[in-house]
Amino acid sequence: MHSSAAPARRMADIAPFHVMALLARAGELAAAGRSIIHMEVGEPDFSTAEPIVAAGQRALAAGCTRYTPAAGLPALRQAISTHYRECYGVEVPARRILVTPGASGALQLATAILINPGDRVLLADPGYPCNRHFVRLAEGEAVGIPVGPETGYQLTAEQVERHWDDRTTAVLLASPANPTGTVVPPEELAAIIAVVEARGGRVIVDEIYHGLVYGAPIQTALAYSDRVCLVNSFSKYYGMTGWRLGWLVAPDDCVEAAEKLAQNVFLAASTPAQYAALAAFTPEAQDIFEARRLEFQARRDFLLPALRELGFGIPLLPDGAFYLYADCSRFTDDSYPFALRLLEEAGVAITPGLDFGSHQPSRHVRFAYTNAIPQLAEGVERLRRALTA
Amino acid sequence: MHSSAAPARRMADIAPFHVMALLARAGELAAAGRSIIHMEVGEPDFSTAEPIVAAGQRALAAGCTRYTPAAGLPALRQAISTHYRECYGVEVPARRILVTPGASGALQLATAILINPGDRVLLADPGYPCNRHFVRLAEGEAVGIPVGPETGYQLTAEQVERHWDDRTTAVLLASPANPTGTVVPPEELAAIIAVVEARGGRVIVDEIYHGLVYGAPIQTALAYSDRVCLVNSFSKYYGMTGWRLGWLVAPDDCVEAAEKLAQNVFLAASTPAQYAALAAFTPEAQDIFEARRLEFQARRDFLLPALRELGFGIPLLPDGAFYLYADCSRFTDDSYPFALRLLEEAGVAITPGLDFGSHQPSRHVRFAYTNAIPQLAEGVERLRRALTA
Repeated sequence: MHSSAAPARRMADIAPFHVMALLARAGELAAAGRSIIHMEVGEPDFSTAEPIVAAGQRALAAGCTRYTPAAGLPALRQAISTHYRECYGVEVPARRILVTPGASGALQLATAILINPGDRVLLADPGYPCNRHFVRLAEGEAVGIPVGPETGYQLTAEQVERHWDDRTTAVLLASPANPTGTVVPPEELAAIIAVVEARGGRVIVDEIYHGLVYGAPIQTALAYSDRVCLVNSFSKYYGMTGWRLGWLVAPDDCVEAAEKLAQNVFLAASTPAQYAALAAFTPEAQDIFEARRLEFQARRDFLLPALRELGFGIPLLPDGAFYLYADCSRFTDDSYPFALRLLEEAGVAITPGLDFGSHQPSRHVRFAYTNAIPQLAEGVERLRRALTA
Repeated sequence: MHSSAAPARRMADIAPFHVMALLARAGELAAAGRSIIHMEVGEPDFSTAEPIVAAGQRALAAGCTRYTPAAGLPALRQAISTHYRECYGVEVPARRILVTPGASGALQLATAILINPGDRVLLADPGYPCNRHFVRLAEGEAVGIPVGPETGYQLTAEQVERHWDDRTTAVLLASPANPTGTVVPPEELAAIIAVVEARGGRVIVDEIYHGLVYGAPIQTALAYSDRVCLVNSFSKYYGMTGWRLGWLVAPDDCVEAAEKLAQNVFLAASTPAQYAALAAFTPEAQDIFEARRLEFQARRDFLLPALRELGFGIPLLPDGAFYLYADCSRFTDDSYPFALRLLEEAGVAITPGLDFGSHQPSRHVRFAYTNAIPQLAEGVERLRRALTA
């Protein structure tokens, strides 16, 4: 007899977000009257832009509360297609675009469609933890490749080539990346795709922080190949976190699989969210996004030198997202109790490296600049007092 | 070298909704000016009730567009807990309740948490196709057990006992069921749970059509065991289809796994939807739901005798949901071309049995009474003309 007293084996490999325990403690401290500076949260302080909220309200008033097609509202798929043409000069037909419940839904489709049990998938360590968990849910093996500042915390074509073996079938990239904010340079991106596709493999690219870049504009991976599986989101640049909306661009030979899988695993993305998102492509909304992008850039440009001055090691200027990944080994040999101590003593919440992989998590923490400069400045002051006491 | 030119193997076992091809053809006919009577759609004609829409609009106006905790808004989890106490007399602590993106999200959590690769999961055939696909996504084997009118199209404890083997670890029930509308009788439900739990197995129960019952009120499976994994939805009884909101009640030993899995696979359910759903438990909304329930009952009581009179075989009165599962063997030996013919010739769309499993799909079709009686009456008239021509 087969006992199923415990959760399935895969659950042992799925880690919780360790920062949640820290968040819970931050909540307790706040409830007890302590002031907490939040530099741990991967969610901007901005609410959804007014034109999008207004579009959502109009949709509700018009009774748009029933299912959409599984792949999404045709008008929204078309708007995303137009966005690729106008912003990137890349033709992506709407039929290859599926609207999903967040980038999470798109990652789930991509991994379930591409990964067989036992397949090895290469990804950068540190990286966004959900990515390796989606690989695990497809019964694949996520192979974290240690990366550091010498490669901008990103995989290179040379590394991919070196780690590729008979069981490897895919590479998962994120650009800009969480927790490091770094971008895969265009020539490296093209080279990685070429290396993988020459081996009959697939590249999954997470571009959910696209748009939130502070140097030269960056090109989408779709410009280099129409065989990549591309994941994007309305959460970050478009500021629609709680609405749970994203999209997948599938290669032609996966579109049918993606559509039937979407029918089965989520039926469709939220209808009010899809109508609201149509307004994300209006000039009024784009102006708001651009103003917010400049604000993020100002925050980065304030926080990075301030943290360096305190003694955190941030060897390169990250080009995107809203994170700084910092070496804290000058202060501690274990970033988890270090983060807890800073919360208790300084009232500053940051994320320990543990959430991002197994390559030197103990010597790193992640700072998010998702709050305004005055809060960041107060946080830096508190850190200064705690670390020089 | 391992080639991943094609979608992963599992995709060969995931079927699309066959009714979609029929829906596409219905759309073409409608675009060409034909009138189509829709009896194929599993979505009621009612929009979301006004108190819920208003709550959603208030939430948007208040800027409630950011992430909630992964398990959902505490107030909504508590409201669901209170609902179990008030409607069923069952104590279900809020900590065991996770709010999910539709019942789809809850089914995904339940199957990923409970099913190991190779595990066999028993379920009724015919049944809701996504259920077996979720089992497949967890690399389990969905074992469809043929059921017919003699057991109310539901599994019995005796069948479960007979089909249980060393590899079987779970049973998945749906009550009321899609496509048959039938309910597992309370004593049988208790007996199935006892048989499974005595073998160390798990019962997953889909109660998404609970509330939409037309005979005696039915009890939740939670009354019989606190070890079942229970799936429910705001889509059907609560009329919130397009919002994509449901919930999972997890047994105590799975709560932690469910929460970390939710963090990783969808982060959280839609925030505006969760605020809107709080209004589903107000007396004003409950009055609307009750009026709609009575309307569904009237539709069933109109449609069932009318279809029987036409010659469809509907051997028993289904107690719930909004479907009639009908034997069409008097007219055809293959329900799929039969459904296509009725669409072309009579302008009536129904769902062929093919979408619901492999036990006699060719001799069955599903009628949904999700539209008003005048439309149903017109549909019946058209069918009469087509079938007696």
